[in-house]
Amino acid sequence: MRLSQYFLPVTKDVPSDAAIVSHQLMLRAGMVRQNGAGIYSWLPLGFKVLKKIEQIVREEMDRAGAVEMLMPTLQQADLWRESGRYDDYGEEMLRITDRGGRDMLYGPTNEEMITDVFRGYVKSYKQLPLNLYHQQWKFRDEVRPRFGVMRGREFLMKDAYSFDLTEAAARVSYQKMFAAYLNTFDRLGVTAIPMQADPGPIGGDLSHEFLVLAESGESAVFCDSEVLDVPAPGLDFDFGDETALAAEMDKRTKFYAATDEKHDAAAYADVPDGRKTEARGIEVGHIFYFGTKYSEPMGAGVQDSDGNVVPIHGGSYGIGVSRLVGAIIEACHDENGIVWPASVSPFDVGLISMRPKDEACAAGCDAAYDALTAAGFETLYDETDDRAGAKFGRMDLIGLPFQIIIGPKALEKGVVELKIRKTGEREELALDAAINRMRALA
Amino acid sequence: MRLSQYFLPVTKDVPSDAAIVSHQLMLRAGMVRQNGAGIYSWLPLGFKVLKKIEQIVREEMDRAGAVEMLMPTLQQADLWRESGRYDDYGEEMLRITDRGGRDMLYGPTNEEMITDVFRGYVKSYKQLPLNLYHQQWKFRDEVRPRFGVMRGREFLMKDAYSFDLTEAAARVSYQKMFAAYLNTFDRLGVTAIPMQADPGPIGGDLSHEFLVLAESGESAVFCDSEVLDVPAPGLDFDFGDETALAAEMDKRTKFYAATDEKHDAAAYADVPDGRKTEARGIEVGHIFYFGTKYSEPMGAGVQDSDGNVVPIHGGSYGIGVSRLVGAIIEACHDENGIVWPASVSPFDVGLISMRPKDEACAAGCDAAYDALTAAGFETLYDETDDRAGAKFGRMDLIGLPFQIIIGPKALEKGVVELKIRKTGEREELALDAAINRMRALA
Repeated sequence: MRLSQYFLPVTKDVPSDAAIVSHQLMLRAGMVRQNGAGIYSWLPLGFKVLKKIEQIVREEMDRAGAVEMLMPTLQQADLWRESGRYDDYGEEMLRITDRGGRDMLYGPTNEEMITDVFRGYVKSYKQLPLNLYHQQWKFRDEVRPRFGVMRGREFLMKDAYSFDLTEAAARVSYQKMFAAYLNTFDRLGVTAIPMQADPGPIGGDLSHEFLVLAESGESAVFCDSEVLDVPAPGLDFDFGDETALAAEMDKRTKFYAATDEKHDAAAYADVPDGRKTEARGIEVGHIFYFGTKYSEPMGAGVQDSDGNVVPIHGGSYGIGVSRLVGAIIEACHDENGIVWPASVSPFDVGLISMRPKDEACAAGCDAAYDALTAAGFETLYDETDDRAGAKFGRMDLIGLPFQIIIGPKALEKGVVELKIRKTGEREELALDAAINRMRALA
Repeated sequence: MRLSQYFLPVTKDVPSDAAIVSHQLMLRAGMVRQNGAGIYSWLPLGFKVLKKIEQIVREEMDRAGAVEMLMPTLQQADLWRESGRYDDYGEEMLRITDRGGRDMLYGPTNEEMITDVFRGYVKSYKQLPLNLYHQQWKFRDEVRPRFGVMRGREFLMKDAYSFDLTEAAARVSYQKMFAAYLNTFDRLGVTAIPMQADPGPIGGDLSHEFLVLAESGESAVFCDSEVLDVPAPGLDFDFGDETALAAEMDKRTKFYAATDEKHDAAAYADVPDGRKTEARGIEVGHIFYFGTKYSEPMGAGVQDSDGNVVPIHGGSYGIGVSRLVGAIIEACHDENGIVWPASVSPFDVGLISMRPKDEACAAGCDAAYDALTAAGFETLYDETDDRAGAKFGRMDLIGLPFQIIIGPKALEKGVVELKIRKTGEREELALDAAINRMRALA
């Protein structure tokens, strides 16, 4: 993409209410524009990151056997009256009346609707297990939206819903999501720790939050450092192996890890001294087994092998997709701007032409652009007339993993300058060698 | 995808209010489920088609130089007060009040919001031309939603917005979208005819609707048959060639083509007799030059080369993405069900195992599934215990371009049965030969 044909409105104007670094950087890098309290437009650069996260989440949900669909943003109030949540939900639910006087709402979550979809079609235990997910915009009318996309009102969430005949089977579905989440966050380039969360209406141990560690995180986190070193299950993990599924959960939950809300000082005291770790974290996922909470009142039952109709056991599994854009920036930035993990970077490499008006330099840069593109690198090509300092600052700010800088002198020598954004390391080498270097590092 | 692990709730129950064939077929094929008046969930099969259309639209917008972003679904009423449309829009606008008492609305279109984004950043003619687009859910509170996703209330639209310094430059932007639309609909496997539409506030010839021809179309269409034979510009078309851009428009608009609303019987009488064509059509796109309608009241101006601030000339360009799912089915079906164009088919091929409980047959089908997948065919593998007739009927109903049918006898002979959905043609041949055949036909 040639920068002159792109829309990348970087800016130095950041409103004073942008209190955290990810919010400031997203505004400065031209990733988002606020359209109202807690409501944002995703400008082209931000949109690309959002789509990359969405795609990684999709691939890992699919790998774990979940099936993608899409529910609408607006829902009928009557559905929520069936579960009893219409009155309970409070002011965070955005209630709407249509021209026909019908009570509707902008979905803050989809347990009721997916239960309605399920009961419309599934009648036999033979059709289970089933896990359906979507990635759709939600709305929660926060009284004080803040932190940019981290606590917006209109936000993109991946929510999956599992349906099983028994609690034991639901546990397996839960463990699949647990393992899939570990792979997802690993691919997104962040360390996310699962932590026991409030168990909900029926107790038990099947409720975990996943927190990304970041200095500016909203929650204090206390953990045994060993939990940070357990590797993700990996993309060749067998989701059909129930022993391995249980082991993935056990090998993390055996270590102490809790947010301040759930912190147990006595249990933490038992963590060996050299391993006590206090950090901060941002919640980016939450998984939850809720049994028959929705299936009983809403009549979502299936026939079991004896012919009896029994309510299904359900779970829900959320990932804050738009929130993750902010969370990743919180975890991945330096004093010059964002430092994207390669997997979610909006472009793979930034190409800077030092003298676009110099014919030889322009031709050399055009050729490099074609070569990078042909090599499979999605390239943002800065061929603008801006001064060098502005180009360097902008490219550092938007945080692509690599920069290729080409000026007339380097061209004469037959080299380009490769800059590694994360380390600041610079090296002069032939373009082919730079491409090989980037491939090796990617 | 193994059918036993998928969610494909085909059904024979179709409510009597499903009046048109695409609505009936989408319900029968388990593509959508109604959640409220004009509001649908996209079940996995329907979701895949929607995503394929969205991706083709994206690729052709990008090819024409438009830049993708994403605006939110909810908007501030104040923005619409600036353009004067908040009061004018009428009851189709879904008006919402949030917990803070602010007037909001669910966006039915985005001219105001994109103009606000534009004026926030763009100050100089040097930053033009600019064309920004998004694909986002919209809401129009239709008094009588009907025809399934063809006239829903919550619907997915691609809307692009161009910004130019002059009317002449805006004409070029318009022609780019005109050419891009021809390629888009061609890739979607349908014939779409551009027809002069109401010119809007400032007159002129820059307003066209694109109609897909389908027997059950909502509008009567009168045209010169020659317009049907003009080929699409093609994917190697040079969007930088202004002469070619103008020619693409001219070579169509020189032939008579109009819906009943705009029909001019006298002009139609001049069409040579053998070429007079009366058909029916469905509007799937609408492009529109509106000049300074929004930029003047909203203060979206740029400095021209003389340093004067002038309001920009704008256009908007819509494609009904969710509506297209229905429109394509209206154009592409037979008495047995849907017949997808290959480009938007939810899977490339359906593999039917005739005897899943027969060990040799199951092994042969598993091997065929692996071979098809390795050959790059996205395969829906029916390894269920359903009876053969049900399997055949279901596979025909969902309309994948190819079926591979494997039973014990064929396996012994070393062949499979290849069925071409569109023609009904069946052939026994080796799997490799079937793969080559499908490649040649795809």
